[in-house]
Amino acid sequence: MNSDRKLFLLTNDDGIQAPGLRMLIEVVKHLGDVLVVAPDSPQSGQGHAITVNDPLQYSKIVDNGKEYREYSCSGTPADCVKFAINEVLDKKPDICLSGINHGTNASINVLYSGTMSAAIEAGIQGVTSIGFSLCDYSWEANFSVVKNHVLKIIKKTLANLNEEISVLNVNIPKVEDEREIQGVKVCRQAKAKIREGFDKRITPMGKEYYWLTGDYENMDEGQDTDIYALSKKFISIVPTQFDLTAHNKINELLNWTFNE
Amino acid sequence: MNSDRKLFLLTNDDGIQAPGLRMLIEVVKHLGDVLVVAPDSPQSGQGHAITVNDPLQYSKIVDNGKEYREYSCSGTPADCVKFAINEVLDKKPDICLSGINHGTNASINVLYSGTMSAAIEAGIQGVTSIGFSLCDYSWEANFSVVKNHVLKIIKKTLANLNEEISVLNVNIPKVEDEREIQGVKVCRQAKAKIREGFDKRITPMGKEYYWLTGDYENMDEGQDTDIYALSKKFISIVPTQFDLTAHNKINELLNWTFNE
Repeated sequence: MNSDRKLFLLTNDDGIQAPGLRMLIEVVKHLGDVLVVAPDSPQSGQGHAITVNDPLQYSKIVDNGKEYREYSCSGTPADCVKFAINEVLDKKPDICLSGINHGTNASINVLYSGTMSAAIEAGIQGVTSIGFSLCDYSWEANFSVVKNHVLKIIKKTLANLNEEISVLNVNIPKVEDEREIQGVKVCRQAKAKIREGFDKRITPMGKEYYWLTGDYENMDEGQDTDIYALSKKFISIVPTQFDLTAHNKINELLNWTFNE
Repeated sequence: MNSDRKLFLLTNDDGIQAPGLRMLIEVVKHLGDVLVVAPDSPQSGQGHAITVNDPLQYSKIVDNGKEYREYSCSGTPADCVKFAINEVLDKKPDICLSGINHGTNASINVLYSGTMSAAIEAGIQGVTSIGFSLCDYSWEANFSVVKNHVLKIIKKTLANLNEEISVLNVNIPKVEDEREIQGVKVCRQAKAKIREGFDKRITPMGKEYYWLTGDYENMDEGQDTDIYALSKKFISIVPTQFDLTAHNKINELLNWTFNE
């Protein structure tokens, strides 16, 4: 019997073959039992989408019993987490890890991120989770230099598990050498927006189409934000919630006298 | 010159032909200039997805000049809002209205909702917004009985516009007669999850596939929640934010000593 053995659920939004996920598997596979359920194709920008108008298909890719299993799924990152917890596993995982994402999920990107929506979905399901992102969009990003930092954060989180669920948004600056990383900072999400562009093109048949593009626009000078920490080569950790109520606005709204 | 004329941006997630959107157009079309940009097909459950791996296409459906225009878009509700504000309009709309959704977006549904993600996207873009949902999933839902309530909430919001952006999640109970509605309550989002099911089926070729199903599971006994208000036949209004930082967890995380 090995009842103290931890159960890890892994997913991502770049797809089951992404190097970032492969590195995350590398980091945790000797720490306990591992179930990977990840999208069969890239799902960047999927946010908290779930698949309600189409059926879902799953394929078992690797099956080494409870110790190590991999499934690919035709759905979104949030679907993967729902399927893993409700259909594959017979007990809750100890922790859900999502990523390592190719590209930043700091600041407002948390809302568009499939990586973070998978982590948030785990939180909704009552499982503590961490979404990891490396601020490098390249498919060939150098994940090996952040391996030790990722392992350290996972171990710290496991050591602090308690009744209250934590969902952590971890972003790691792009570095050439792990010693460039200055440490870890607990932060708040920076206020920002994406300044959109629409790159207009013409199909061979003469019809207009557009590619969505965008530049990040920081509107926050605070030194307690994820963007600031990353700019100083710190890893940022933002504790993340799924209560979207703007509690500080309730009193103002009560003055709007909707019932007059 | 008519510079006091309000500019309304309308969208939804059920698609440009949905009766809920048609009713919303009916309510506002005499109040000012109206631009509708809505998905060309149903986008329920799309959450805050944006389209980054595919191009977007748009078609002009109606063009009565600035007074009334309709576009359909191949993308998500959030894409529609980005396109409208950044590509179609030459000034910011006074307000963005999303819906009227066929089905509830109360409680945790706010995260999965394309309707509310469109409203939140407007908020990110600096535009006050309201997502309207009628707690009736039927395509033939009776929107006429909620028309006056929707108009009242839009007018109240326009009368209270200020520098600070508001994003409102409005849910309306299903009623037979508008007089059944007891009034409007400002609420917080109820704590809940969806208890998932996966309905397994077999294709004619013998391959397994699944339909995601789910029952709503309320875990919140508070009388200040949207779910409670709706159960008492009140319209619920939850002020909604896009800062996902769990501010109340920052101190706890600082004790985790990540930098030891």
